[in-house]
Amino acid sequence: MDLAVTNATVVTLDGDGLGIVDDGTIAVDGHRIEYVGPASGFDGAPDRVLDAEGCIVLPGLVDAHRHSGHALLRGGAQDLPEIEWMTDGLGPIARHATTADRIAGTRLAVAESLLSGVTTFGEYASEVGSLIEEVYEPLGLRVVAIETINEVVDDREERGPDEPYAFDRSKGENALDRAEALFENYGEHPLVTPAYGPQAVDMVSPELLRTVGERAGEHGRDFHVHVAQGERERRQIEARYGADESTVTVLAEEDLLGERLVAIHCHDATAGERKRIADAGARFVGCPSSIGAIDGVVPPLTEFLDHGAVVAVGTDQAPGPGGHDFFRELRTASLLSKTDATDPTAMPAWETLQRGTVGGARALGLGDAVGTLAEGTPADFVVVDLDVPNLAPAVSEPLHTAVPNLVFSGGSRGLRDVFVAGARVVADGSIQGMDVEAVVAEAQERAERVFDEAAVDWRAADSTLVSRADEGWL
Amino acid sequence: MDLAVTNATVVTLDGDGLGIVDDGTIAVDGHRIEYVGPASGFDGAPDRVLDAEGCIVLPGLVDAHRHSGHALLRGGAQDLPEIEWMTDGLGPIARHATTADRIAGTRLAVAESLLSGVTTFGEYASEVGSLIEEVYEPLGLRVVAIETINEVVDDREERGPDEPYAFDRSKGENALDRAEALFENYGEHPLVTPAYGPQAVDMVSPELLRTVGERAGEHGRDFHVHVAQGERERRQIEARYGADESTVTVLAEEDLLGERLVAIHCHDATAGERKRIADAGARFVGCPSSIGAIDGVVPPLTEFLDHGAVVAVGTDQAPGPGGHDFFRELRTASLLSKTDATDPTAMPAWETLQRGTVGGARALGLGDAVGTLAEGTPADFVVVDLDVPNLAPAVSEPLHTAVPNLVFSGGSRGLRDVFVAGARVVADGSIQGMDVEAVVAEAQERAERVFDEAAVDWRAADSTLVSRADEGWL
Repeated sequence: MDLAVTNATVVTLDGDGLGIVDDGTIAVDGHRIEYVGPASGFDGAPDRVLDAEGCIVLPGLVDAHRHSGHALLRGGAQDLPEIEWMTDGLGPIARHATTADRIAGTRLAVAESLLSGVTTFGEYASEVGSLIEEVYEPLGLRVVAIETINEVVDDREERGPDEPYAFDRSKGENALDRAEALFENYGEHPLVTPAYGPQAVDMVSPELLRTVGERAGEHGRDFHVHVAQGERERRQIEARYGADESTVTVLAEEDLLGERLVAIHCHDATAGERKRIADAGARFVGCPSSIGAIDGVVPPLTEFLDHGAVVAVGTDQAPGPGGHDFFRELRTASLLSKTDATDPTAMPAWETLQRGTVGGARALGLGDAVGTLAEGTPADFVVVDLDVPNLAPAVSEPLHTAVPNLVFSGGSRGLRDVFVAGARVVADGSIQGMDVEAVVAEAQERAERVFDEAAVDWRAADSTLVSRADEGWL
Repeated sequence: MDLAVTNATVVTLDGDGLGIVDDGTIAVDGHRIEYVGPASGFDGAPDRVLDAEGCIVLPGLVDAHRHSGHALLRGGAQDLPEIEWMTDGLGPIARHATTADRIAGTRLAVAESLLSGVTTFGEYASEVGSLIEEVYEPLGLRVVAIETINEVVDDREERGPDEPYAFDRSKGENALDRAEALFENYGEHPLVTPAYGPQAVDMVSPELLRTVGERAGEHGRDFHVHVAQGERERRQIEARYGADESTVTVLAEEDLLGERLVAIHCHDATAGERKRIADAGARFVGCPSSIGAIDGVVPPLTEFLDHGAVVAVGTDQAPGPGGHDFFRELRTASLLSKTDATDPTAMPAWETLQRGTVGGARALGLGDAVGTLAEGTPADFVVVDLDVPNLAPAVSEPLHTAVPNLVFSGGSRGLRDVFVAGARVVADGSIQGMDVEAVVAEAQERAERVFDEAAVDWRAADSTLVSRADEGWL
């Protein structure tokens, strides 16, 4: 036995309730958990003991949907209406980012995430393989690698919102080939699970949508789709398929509405369509900060829970009011759900923590192997020191206050250790195998170049932010 | 000249826009700012230079409304309906906290706040003088000390929500005496500004309300009132004053609706009443996390801004989903305002930062002396390192991304230095004159005692949380 973490409050997320164990021990052998439970039941002889007095141990958090590469553009576009945000705000800047920039952005975003307890990432990107090779594999993180499949010709900023995007079939085929290559390269990888990412129903031809659905069925793989993202998508669908059609009807027609679908967002679907998605067995990922900021809308987390769906949370995009502090994202999920329903009992702390752990793992197709702590499961867990001003005090009688404090009061501030498959990837708040200062410095240098190169385009696109910057507000 | 902070991006919040200065210098002599502006315009000879390369300097943040003492009870009550939250959730625990416990809680909460850049506190408490003496003065912080005035007899948990609370006039008189003592003790204090705190219109008799209004006028002081807090208050007002009356009509009848009123919350007032409050010249403080969590409601920040009122933000209560990370509170204010209005342009980053600085100072009656950086004003400012994974990268062309990143991406994570009236109260992330570990340890010890003593009462009150704890969710 390699290691035992002792003297902690352990939250297993396994069995009844949250599985809270006072004076708990978790022991690791190789990649797996050998023991988890009360100290009194442990009689192993570990090579090493990590004293976690005053700490809480919980399953590694699961950020089920994100585009980490955009972190380099953070702060570049926000406080704009949805269509203007993409077309005139973010688009002109994002166009100047290269693959190397996106790798640097991913490193930065992953650093932030690791320091907020994320062990499993739902990474959605074009050429996602480069991010796996350069960032996720070297750090030893668990990742579902979702290759973006998109056929839209790069002239869409020039088109009006009601003019269907032009499609380039070869672009889609290339993306599909990249996805297939992922399955070959990582088919049996213990930490990397590939998936298809047909970006959105308005961005992929119906033929390719159907092909993806069929391939996913053949290979037993998932496909992740941004579903009903907002006005831009709705107008595109109506322009291409007719006024009676919607993202959900097209998904159904192309036979994609089923258990292999991981449906992201869904805020612009009707209530009936959302029920249809859930009833089809699809899983749901909501991204509260991102969609709150881009659309002024709260993702239908509680609605999908009411329908009995598997529900997870993602940080989505970093440009704009982004960021990948996942404890903060869980807090945001709860608060936005409460105010959306005018119901302070909506998304209580325990439910929210489930969404960020076992819910995330199930949404990503990792079953219960990840997101819970149980004997024999992969040793993905985090150790949070509760003895910090944001999280203290924590009592265990007559109720455990640590879980609400973690969810609502800033769990990241006490983050001490992160383990993935038994390896300690964060030790005493320090990311192993990453020079964080160098990562930040590279991000800074690259961002300066990208924004500098984009300046003319950005001014020409003339979003509201241009005059705000000229007036000294930005 | 004592000190110059150099090589920083400085945000003055003074003049046009946000007053962003690239390569800025801020110099301090004694308690005041001697110079703020571009490095090129500075020719002073400071005794000491603090290099702030890669950092942003901004006015100290203003948390305009809070009850810090409750931090000891954090995590004890949340995810409950409003009335149940107070009566059956928090009440039975809070009743066991002593003055010494509240002092310990205040120390803990102030530590969290300082590490998130707060320099000015709107502290609302019974016997607030003890918190000033024990916590705020020793640390050298700026505080508006608001003495809670409340006449409610301590039997209100036994009464139904529609039975008017019994009033104890002597309780109110004693509180008023404590408020008057504050004016005597701190009338000329450079950092402490006392104010009256008639807690809520349902908790103070009309006679005492009127007296407070008159005294405030005579002494030229403000009174801070929780206005239209929700169902509990509305039912009390109707029970006492009749079905046609509301908090706002009673405030008007007792002549309190005017420029000395700082109106907190107001979410349960009608739109017309809110306009009436603003038109009377009252100032408004909204507490997004607190009211979002307790009531499932978004405070009417943007509505009061539309009415031209002075608008500020507060962290309010810490028990439940509290916490006092003020950058996070600003982010919450913006996101909740966006989703409440279904408008991603609501409460943009620059507007939000104004609310947390100059807006807060004006709401607290500190004018423009605090909350902006200008020559001759008190040297209250913070230095935030942008070279951390949550805040990087920051570019200055073609727009400054640092401000949206501070507001949306977690400014506290880069907090380096805090100055209040020229004194460095946080240096390199370390609070001067406070042993944070000891503060946390004392809070922990006291919380264990309070919750232990409260256990029987808490179970007897039988809120939903009791069964949730028994089921293992808490």
